[in-house]
Order: sequence, then structure tokens, then C-alpha cells
Amino acid sequence: MSRPAVILVSGGLDSATTLAIAAGEGFECHAISFSYGQRHAVELEAAARVCRSLHAASHRVIELDATAFAGSSLTGDGDVPRGRSPEELGEGIPSTYVPARNLVFLSHALGVAEGIGSSDLFIGVNAVDYSGYPDCRPEFIESFSATANLATRIGVEGETIRVHAPLQDMGKADIIRRGLELGVDYGLTTSCYAPGEGGSPCGDCDSCSLRAAGFAEAGVDDPLTRRCS
Amino acid sequence: MSRPAVILVSGGLDSATTLAIAAGEGFECHAISFSYGQRHAVELEAAARVCRSLHAASHRVIELDATAFAGSSLTGDGDVPRGRSPEELGEGIPSTYVPARNLVFLSHALGVAEGIGSSDLFIGVNAVDYSGYPDCRPEFIESFSATANLATRIGVEGETIRVHAPLQDMGKADIIRRGLELGVDYGLTTSCYAPGEGGSPCGDCDSCSLRAAGFAEAGVDDPLTRRCS
Repeated sequence: MSRPAVILVSGGLDSATTLAIAAGEGFECHAISFSYGQRHAVELEAAARVCRSLHAASHRVIELDATAFAGSSLTGDGDVPRGRSPEELGEGIPSTYVPARNLVFLSHALGVAEGIGSSDLFIGVNAVDYSGYPDCRPEFIESFSATANLATRIGVEGETIRVHAPLQDMGKADIIRRGLELGVDYGLTTSCYAPGEGGSPCGDCDSCSLRAAGFAEAGVDDPLTRRCS
Repeated sequence: MSRPAVILVSGGLDSATTLAIAAGEGFECHAISFSYGQRHAVELEAAARVCRSLHAASHRVIELDATAFAGSSLTGDGDVPRGRSPEELGEGIPSTYVPARNLVFLSHALGVAEGIGSSDLFIGVNAVDYSGYPDCRPEFIESFSATANLATRIGVEGETIRVHAPLQDMGKADIIRRGLELGVDYGLTTSCYAPGEGGSPCGDCDSCSLRAAGFAEAGVDDPLTRRCS
């Protein structure tokens, strides 16, 4: 019998690849997504498509109170940054940073994991081609793992809780190559921070820029932009 | 100008005392409570009363998706333990343990703190007269503090985030004495895990037992039980 794991699935490229990696390692994959007033709520539909496509054992969407996430351009306060080059993305923490987001997400994932008797969490953070968020760094994931093992019944009485971040040291192009090997259909994902009607990517927010650079470096076409052009 | 702090206020005796301590230290107190499908929802009314009484600068109730908290007798799965002596309470983790609860609560508190420009969190955990929950121990609070400083913009770019747990090393009687010095009206609080009609305490759940033993040791009457008898 395969062991259960809880996978954070946003609907984006990284988390789709992470789900495929967890499934490839033989885990029974229980996906969770969050509805938190994000302006790109189309990503929840993408998350559902990705989970179906990769045969997740379950997919639950956890509602988070949007008032707890004020102060980010991703939840409606101000414009998202545009037209930044991949080099500029590493400089400082942009306005799309959502206060304590990954900590809140992982904490909820841990609660779900305990509820289903799982001690494995997967998150698709990576600290190479990323947007400069503090909660994507390896030192955060490591510290969270330690806290998780002190916070929970399972960590105290049972097995060690493991927080897997398989993309941690991978660039965007490597992530895309790995996902394609594992059969991820990136045409089902969405990356844009400020999508237009029907979910079409804007093409110049930080997330679109990182995605385009990744596909270019991997030497493959992005099925999303191919479909839209 | 006083500095803002975020205080977790459940409506119970410990968090009321914590709020009074934070106010006594000169912080501008922003209280948060959580609605998470707890069967003792009467505690949210108590939290509001306590916040008014102690002049909190704000009080927000954050809704948490109850499906993320399955597997606890506090959220409706099974009976709460009854008739245990204070000595028995330290043995093992009881069914009232809610998976990852304090981690989820503190993570949200951190998000709120960042939103209002605060770097001080207060939580009323104590590891002396407690129910055996792993997420009430000093080592959990310490580990969470480290994680919080790695997870957030404020921790990375600004001030150190401090997680205050002023009751950490206090027994229940000492907490009550300290609260009475600070003017806490414990008649406004509620502690029972399974209150009856009108919020009256059951008298024999773990939380009622700890409360009764605390008031007895402090040598004062509990205004709650006095009112009900």
C-alpha cells in the first residue's frame, strides 16, 4: 500500500511538477489548494485540472479568511510589478509577497496530514528562479520542518514529519524538463499573477517572465502561450 | 506612541491574562480569535467580552475552514475526556488535541502582524498546568519564533519578530493571581470544552478541572461557578 502525502498544489508550473514527483515516488497524493482572495483565482481551476490529470487521490480547497492576508498586490492591494527581467527578480521582496503565506499554507497542510495519518508534505518552492520571497528559501523550509515536529502529535509520538521541497535547487528550465519526463501537461497550469479574460496570461508580470525564460532555456514551447497566440 | 502587538485571545482564562499582561506592558493590543468549528463556540462571545473589558485596540475573528481541523473531539469527533485529575492531565495527548492548531493560529497571527506593521505576538500557552498538547511547550514556541523570522518580510528586512508567551512557566494559580492584580474579570471568560445551555461550564472536562484546581490553589472564588450556583 502506498503511503499518503499532502501536496500543496496552486495550479502553477512548480506545484504541478511537485505533484508529479510525489506521485512518481509512489506516494498516495492528497492535494490541497487555498482560496484566499487571490486576484488570480483562475489558478484554483488549474489546480483541479492538474490534480485530475495526475490522478491525485484527493483534492481539497481550503478557504482562508482574506482579511488575514491584507497588504499584498496579489490580494488586491495595488498593481503587480511588470516588465522586470529575470535578473531583477532576485532583488528585494516585491509587492506580490503575501504576509506569512507559505507558513500558513504549510501549517494547514500539516493539520490535514495529521488528520489523514500522513507525515509527508510536499511543497514546490524553489530558490533559484524565484520572486525573492523569504518563505521560499531552504532555511525557511528547514526551520518549518523542525517546528512541525515539535507542534504535532505525530511529530512527538510517531514518525518524523518530512517536508519535501524537491524543486529547491532546480532552475525553471530543469523543473520543466523534469515535469515533461513525468508527463505533466503544462497546458493545464497557469502562472500569471494578473490573468485576463478566460485566464490568458498577461505576459509581463514576474511570474510570466520567469515561466517564459524557463521554457526558452529548456528549448520547448510553452503549450499555454502556443494555445493563446 | 505605543507599539502594536497581536494577541491570540480565545475567551479563556489564560489568554485573558495574556491580553492584560500585554496591555500592562504598554502595547497597543490587536486581538485575534479563530472560528474553526469548535463545539464550544461560546468562547468567541467570551473573547469579545474580554477584549472590550481590557480595551483592546481591535478584535478580529478569523474564520478557519473546519475541514482542515478534522480528527479532534473539540471539533465534534467524539466525546471530550471527563473526570481526570490534574495529575492525569499531563499523561499523553488527549482527544481534545486539534492537529497543528497553535501553529496555524500563530501563522495567521504573524500574517496579521505583518499587515499592521507589528513584530510582537502574544500567546497564552503554559506548560505547567496544561492539557498535554505538544504545541504548548516552550520548545515549540522557540522553534516557531525562529521560523517566523525566516518566513516573513519583517523578519528578513526589519525587526526581529518576538513571540511572547508570558504564562510559559506559571502554574494556573499564579496566572489567576497575576490576572486579578491586572484587573481581569474572570467572570467574563469561559474555559469549558463542552459547555451547556447559556455557556454554563460542565465542571468535569480537563479544562474545567484545571480551572477549578487553579482557583482553589489561589484561594479565591471563581466568579463563573459562583454565578452559576
